[in-house]
Amino acid sequence: MIYEEKTVSTKRIYDGIVVNLRVDTVELPDGKTALRDIVEHPGGVGIVAITDDNKILMVKQYRKPIEKAIIELPAGKLDKNEDIEVCGRRELEEETGYKAKEFTYLGYMYPSPGFDDEVTHLYLARDLYKGKVNLDEDEYLDVYKYDISEVKEMIMNNEINDAKTVIGFFKAIEYLK
Amino acid sequence: MIYEEKTVSTKRIYDGIVVNLRVDTVELPDGKTALRDIVEHPGGVGIVAITDDNKILMVKQYRKPIEKAIIELPAGKLDKNEDIEVCGRRELEEETGYKAKEFTYLGYMYPSPGFDDEVTHLYLARDLYKGKVNLDEDEYLDVYKYDISEVKEMIMNNEINDAKTVIGFFKAIEYLK
Repeated sequence: MIYEEKTVSTKRIYDGIVVNLRVDTVELPDGKTALRDIVEHPGGVGIVAITDDNKILMVKQYRKPIEKAIIELPAGKLDKNEDIEVCGRRELEEETGYKAKEFTYLGYMYPSPGFDDEVTHLYLARDLYKGKVNLDEDEYLDVYKYDISEVKEMIMNNEINDAKTVIGFFKAIEYLK
Repeated sequence: MIYEEKTVSTKRIYDGIVVNLRVDTVELPDGKTALRDIVEHPGGVGIVAITDDNKILMVKQYRKPIEKAIIELPAGKLDKNEDIEVCGRRELEEETGYKAKEFTYLGYMYPSPGFDDEVTHLYLARDLYKGKVNLDEDEYLDVYKYDISEVKEMIMNNEINDAKTVIGFFKAIEYLK
């Protein structure tokens, strides 16, 4: 059964820098109504970039909502109307200084579909060569390289806990099997 | 290097049903300031529940932000001050009607740490026995059982694309190896 929720009305709350927020009144299957907080996000792309000596590129950056610096895949938000592969290649180069000859789509994921319309696409990048780092004005990060086995251990130890990073890693490993 | 972002000021925008939203003005390492949209979420728990005949319990429910019904692990939000294991056991029983004798912590993940403070905890539930389904008033869902190999295929085909579900699955499989 599909329990569609039809929009009865929408109230726009906030248009922000990264996200917008609206509240939808929806009609439930039993005819009653309910309110749904909905965050609108442009979506993004994360890249599992593997070097010729089998290391995975990661970036460490401070994330204000959780008040700490965490290790993540290179990634970024989609610019308006931007092609997802173009975005992935752009973010990989901007954040790590690497370009890739091979760029393989690994699918997408919904980080938190209960309230967030965000879609994160994932790519596997191989056959890397040097480009040019170019960070956003308010972006500060460090680049690290980890062995594949090390990343798996860090995921299982919960040292890596960013959703796109964990999913990108496991999908890439499965794809490369 | 840790690029901490100190809060200069906070503006509260919205207090909602599921999430709140605030905008923080932060001080960057170079002394400049930037704005950060921050969604406050209570956090939640997802459960990889495996039956005695090696099937994984999933629920399918309509998600308004993405306007479709998707397959996910049984999961739910933390009530205020609720213990995470209590929450996981409660949500598993409410959504699927099952209780578990074995309940093993698989770690946590950040769905979208760039703007969302949400933390999702994951458990592996085994040795299941019958309890009682009890859905929230505005909650409509169907329960399904899938073979482990089928879930992996659905993840790689992108038929399963909910973050906690993909991460819970891979961590559980890794844990059970």
